[in-house]
Amino acid sequence: MSAKKVVIVGGGFAGLKAARALGNKDEVSVTLIDRRNYHLFQPLLYQVATAGLSPAEISGPIRGLLSKYQNIAVFLDNVKAVDLTKRRLEVSDRSVEYDYLILACGAKHSYFAHPEWEENAPGLKTLEQATEIRRRLLIAFELAEKEEDPEKQKQHLTFVIVGGGPTGVELAGAIAEISRHTLTEDFRRIDPSRTRVLLIEAGKRILAAFDESLSRKAARDLEDLGVQIWTNTRVTDVKATSVVLGDEVVKASTILWAAGVQPSSLNKTLGVPLDPGGRVIIEKDLSLKEHKEVFVLGDQACYIATDGKPLPGLASVAMQQGEHAATEILQEIHGKPRSEFRYRDKGQMATIGRRKAIAQIHRLKFSGFFAWLLWLFIHVYYLIGFKNKVFVIWQWAYAYFTFKRGARLIVDKEWRSQSKSS
Amino acid sequence: MSAKKVVIVGGGFAGLKAARALGNKDEVSVTLIDRRNYHLFQPLLYQVATAGLSPAEISGPIRGLLSKYQNIAVFLDNVKAVDLTKRRLEVSDRSVEYDYLILACGAKHSYFAHPEWEENAPGLKTLEQATEIRRRLLIAFELAEKEEDPEKQKQHLTFVIVGGGPTGVELAGAIAEISRHTLTEDFRRIDPSRTRVLLIEAGKRILAAFDESLSRKAARDLEDLGVQIWTNTRVTDVKATSVVLGDEVVKASTILWAAGVQPSSLNKTLGVPLDPGGRVIIEKDLSLKEHKEVFVLGDQACYIATDGKPLPGLASVAMQQGEHAATEILQEIHGKPRSEFRYRDKGQMATIGRRKAIAQIHRLKFSGFFAWLLWLFIHVYYLIGFKNKVFVIWQWAYAYFTFKRGARLIVDKEWRSQSKSS
Repeated sequence: MSAKKVVIVGGGFAGLKAARALGNKDEVSVTLIDRRNYHLFQPLLYQVATAGLSPAEISGPIRGLLSKYQNIAVFLDNVKAVDLTKRRLEVSDRSVEYDYLILACGAKHSYFAHPEWEENAPGLKTLEQATEIRRRLLIAFELAEKEEDPEKQKQHLTFVIVGGGPTGVELAGAIAEISRHTLTEDFRRIDPSRTRVLLIEAGKRILAAFDESLSRKAARDLEDLGVQIWTNTRVTDVKATSVVLGDEVVKASTILWAAGVQPSSLNKTLGVPLDPGGRVIIEKDLSLKEHKEVFVLGDQACYIATDGKPLPGLASVAMQQGEHAATEILQEIHGKPRSEFRYRDKGQMATIGRRKAIAQIHRLKFSGFFAWLLWLFIHVYYLIGFKNKVFVIWQWAYAYFTFKRGARLIVDKEWRSQSKSS
Repeated sequence: MSAKKVVIVGGGFAGLKAARALGNKDEVSVTLIDRRNYHLFQPLLYQVATAGLSPAEISGPIRGLLSKYQNIAVFLDNVKAVDLTKRRLEVSDRSVEYDYLILACGAKHSYFAHPEWEENAPGLKTLEQATEIRRRLLIAFELAEKEEDPEKQKQHLTFVIVGGGPTGVELAGAIAEISRHTLTEDFRRIDPSRTRVLLIEAGKRILAAFDESLSRKAARDLEDLGVQIWTNTRVTDVKATSVVLGDEVVKASTILWAAGVQPSSLNKTLGVPLDPGGRVIIEKDLSLKEHKEVFVLGDQACYIATDGKPLPGLASVAMQQGEHAATEILQEIHGKPRSEFRYRDKGQMATIGRRKAIAQIHRLKFSGFFAWLLWLFIHVYYLIGFKNKVFVIWQWAYAYFTFKRGARLIVDKEWRSQSKSS
């Protein structure tokens, strides 16, 4: 029996887990395709955006992570189209055939039909975006220090975060903390602790996916750090230096977007049923109804759980789905029937600054310092690759005891020296 | 007596040292202006370019490094012009007056009247350039893995480094090592150890600033790593995928520039005598002949030592000059006369790969593993800021024992998601 060709698109939590589960299995020959050469530990991306960690500390080269599996080849490439009928992918300059296909391309930010807002309010999904946010944050303090006009100074020291989900909360908490602890000694003309951090949420409370008591706890912790939370507030326009909220206008040099995601644009080209958010509706075994050989996983898919609700966009969902899809493929090769995916709820958590967090696992609810320790432990445990773990622990221990942040670099987009003055 | 206004332009080795020497001295009120918000430890920049270290590990925010000195203010700004007569600097949107001025703006790469070569052959002076070089290095292996045409594959696996000074040698050694050790297990279709690394030197030997026996030793060590050294070879054109060497042409996807530097373009606007390389010719006390209140330091200046030769562009020269200029200012405020700068030769060194180096201190010459340990010790010792030291030691220990490299990220220049397919 010759090995079945399995193609995995995407080296995120779902794709990587699937690849590892298929690694060194003689039944399959695996090709993993990603636009990036690295796996990104997205839950810690906000730490890069807020100068706590370096990009390399929350990511690892996909090749290196899979090098011990001789049956896996990794390619850096863009998937342009999927031909479900011919079982073939179009990549940049050739086509790749498959017996089984695992699509796990993830999601990017959605600006609700206002793509022009992105320039003024970057989202936080990629390392490039995290570095851009870090650049904007640090530049804002620098501009404020130079500014003579008090109105403009206030504008430079105003940070608006749109979206009160975990990412928005983590960004707001970290920015407040930087301004109140990290930077206090570093400026002569401004007082960084006068920084205004606004967290804008369209719904009636932040962290709506959590129990109401935890959401209230988180709001109080954020307020302690100096973050102001504006709920029931809808953003109607995002300009270069201001955000419009219906009749209100807030001047801010830094506006960050953490409100809503949309799946890979590949979905629209597949010709399969999508949910209102654009995600592929998948069967109980995670495959496509008309194409059982194709699995769609993680943020790219919508899986309706037994309670009738779609599963949330969490790393634990993606990882379990990756594992399940790999098992389905191996079992089918051995003539076994498909089985249903069952999500084992690992709970969810969000961190608020330096020693506060909230966590919810089934009916258990935690908050405060203990939840933060739990958050720390779980995130470090899952950070893939031994080296990164030790690094991140060290960085955190250092930041915890000194309030310093290790990665306060404003890095330019342009590398050529000739186009610059000096 | 009111404090004298001292303005320092540039937060490199010279500027930072001068600032620290003036820190918390009541006689002076200091303003440090830099285009960047960080001090960069340039001797280790090649490690960032070759995926060994992260940008944040070899740099520290200037503000943080100087925050304990209450009399120093730091501004992120571009100096557009210096009015020596009016003792005034023009920065982006205002002017800054001074009683004393310290110019320490450093140098950038020189393409010998061929600025158009930069696009095809980046130099290594800034973090942005280091990240760009890292991107090109890693992309080249990815492209080779996908390539079907053996000629093109060979082109992708050819790395040409122009310039056989310490930077060129360090880059060539590190690239050879990556291809022969770090990446060997990670590819399925190519053999990274088939990589061709070419070091091009116009002169008759590499590392011409060193004793001839050390230069020969270094050449042998590089050859052991698989680097081919082409001396007496002049680059006549640099194209996108090839380098022209008189009658010869070498196809290469990655061409790096480490041949020659030029000082800050501010020099031409000063109206003071420059040496043929464009550096400001300074007096024995490091000041300008017609403007004793202006000091020019480091790579921006040309200081003729007692032996009649200009001092080399080394960190130790810059640091000693920074210290000297600060002392001169403080002494003059107390009515003391100027004194001559004397360079205490700390020697020079270059490293070749994972455990080889050469070092020359006065008449002492070292090579091999001992020189490498010396190199390691000195570089770690001088890395400014405790945290970075521990980090770098850890990274190196890790890389040394595992041959892995921690920062193998291909990071894009574009951060916006909307302009990308996904």
